[in-house]
Amino acid sequence: MLKRAAVIGLGLIGGSVGLGLLRQNIHVTAFDQNSKSLSQGIELGVIDVAAGSVAEAVAGAELVILAVPVLAVGGILEALKVANFQGVITDVGSVKHPVLQKFIDVFGEVPAQFVPGHPIAGSEQHGVTAANGDLFRAHRVLLTPLAHTNADATEQVSELWRSLGADVSLMTADHHDSILAQTSHLPHLLAYALIDTLSVQGDSLEIFEYAAGGLRDFSRIAASDPTMWRDIFMSNRTALLSILDQYTGELQDLRRTIDTGDSEALFAMLSRSKTARDHFSDLLQKRQKPTSPGGKP
Amino acid sequence: MLKRAAVIGLGLIGGSVGLGLLRQNIHVTAFDQNSKSLSQGIELGVIDVAAGSVAEAVAGAELVILAVPVLAVGGILEALKVANFQGVITDVGSVKHPVLQKFIDVFGEVPAQFVPGHPIAGSEQHGVTAANGDLFRAHRVLLTPLAHTNADATEQVSELWRSLGADVSLMTADHHDSILAQTSHLPHLLAYALIDTLSVQGDSLEIFEYAAGGLRDFSRIAASDPTMWRDIFMSNRTALLSILDQYTGELQDLRRTIDTGDSEALFAMLSRSKTARDHFSDLLQKRQKPTSPGGKP
Repeated sequence: MLKRAAVIGLGLIGGSVGLGLLRQNIHVTAFDQNSKSLSQGIELGVIDVAAGSVAEAVAGAELVILAVPVLAVGGILEALKVANFQGVITDVGSVKHPVLQKFIDVFGEVPAQFVPGHPIAGSEQHGVTAANGDLFRAHRVLLTPLAHTNADATEQVSELWRSLGADVSLMTADHHDSILAQTSHLPHLLAYALIDTLSVQGDSLEIFEYAAGGLRDFSRIAASDPTMWRDIFMSNRTALLSILDQYTGELQDLRRTIDTGDSEALFAMLSRSKTARDHFSDLLQKRQKPTSPGGKP
Repeated sequence: MLKRAAVIGLGLIGGSVGLGLLRQNIHVTAFDQNSKSLSQGIELGVIDVAAGSVAEAVAGAELVILAVPVLAVGGILEALKVANFQGVITDVGSVKHPVLQKFIDVFGEVPAQFVPGHPIAGSEQHGVTAANGDLFRAHRVLLTPLAHTNADATEQVSELWRSLGADVSLMTADHHDSILAQTSHLPHLLAYALIDTLSVQGDSLEIFEYAAGGLRDFSRIAASDPTMWRDIFMSNRTALLSILDQYTGELQDLRRTIDTGDSEALFAMLSRSKTARDHFSDLLQKRQKPTSPGGKP
């Protein structure tokens, strides 16, 4: 049974983990570059100790949750190495390969005590003030342990997420990055491209003013943080471009049916799409509660 | 003041118009090919007379609302011509040019008494049983009268929609079809293409199972009726393909920045998109209530 955890990076995800653990009477120490987030975390009862450094945060902790952007992971790992932290480490990054690479850069290998993770949950709100102890309830968490990852560590991280109400699945990092490229990264790229295309039209204000159902859904997606998404697109380049190229091919096929007036072929494609959508939607409705809408990749 | 209106086509839109007019003590006679819709309309109090034909429906009406799919408009116009209907005619079609063409086909010209219209409102539900007298409240209705359209007829149709709570705007049919291609038709095409691309992947069930925010929004759009959307895509071909080609160009630019690792250019495009989105969103929040989500093009 976990007694003390450390959260590095106290935003929406880190804060929500902290709150969920505190409720179970697990001690939570946190560190964040931004001392205001830490003091807010204390005030809001999201953590019980605000540490002055990574080393201080992890001292005495059995498990560390890295809840910082992928680009900030390297610096944290240097500090964990210096502190000679021996407990279990997990993270929450949206793309797994670059995180594994950071570990290799710093430790020369991916340590057996590191269990890569990705909770598929979020909210349109950001920061520790939006922390919600129920954020992960009925949501998926994907863990991508390597062959040499310590099985007890994987079990401990699984148990951590299950204690927060999440459904845990294991898969390879490759598979994770490919699935997420399709379900999340490509849709975001398409939405950004649409908003950018429309916003440079001469009548762009009018376009947004008359936005019907279609555009509004895209617009919500493109409200996400550009820095985070630049990092995700760049770091998951291979998987993303592969599915993007398939998508572009499909779009060209649809274009051709419309351009040549091939009504039958167009109808067949639209029907196939709707049938697939309804089929999967039915299957999944029986199986899981949908995750909440919004900005988490 | 309108005393008697006829609704041809008793689905969600026709039924909602009927209900809104009945509440104002305006008589509403309806005709629909489907006699079950008519009997439901009577039972639900959405209309007060179920007519056995177009001619019977419009007899004594000052104004006719055509609320049938664009492809069904031709047959209705033949019946109106035979009945020598002299009152005001309006419609609710999502693309205006093909409707104008149907009038030219049947009457040899667009009659001065016809005011083309398009309420931008809808619901994920369909049919007269979903009729809602408040469906158009705080929603846009676009009217596209021609130069020779009777000004009194345009005013009468505007007043009809305003009496249902809608905001009425006038524009040309060309402009309407171009705006709608951008705000509604292209987003739907992109969503259908995405679902179709993903549904043929080997791990498609898993993809839908782990759907994060991005995919779920697209999936909702692609749940719309394929017959209706085939007709819309085909009938608004020119405007749709023009904006699709611009979009494809933008997507290729984004692809290039990711492929070449041009992080700065990628960030610039994402930021521009988010800034535009936030800018328009702010402007519009001050100005209008958003329309309800869902299937109306």
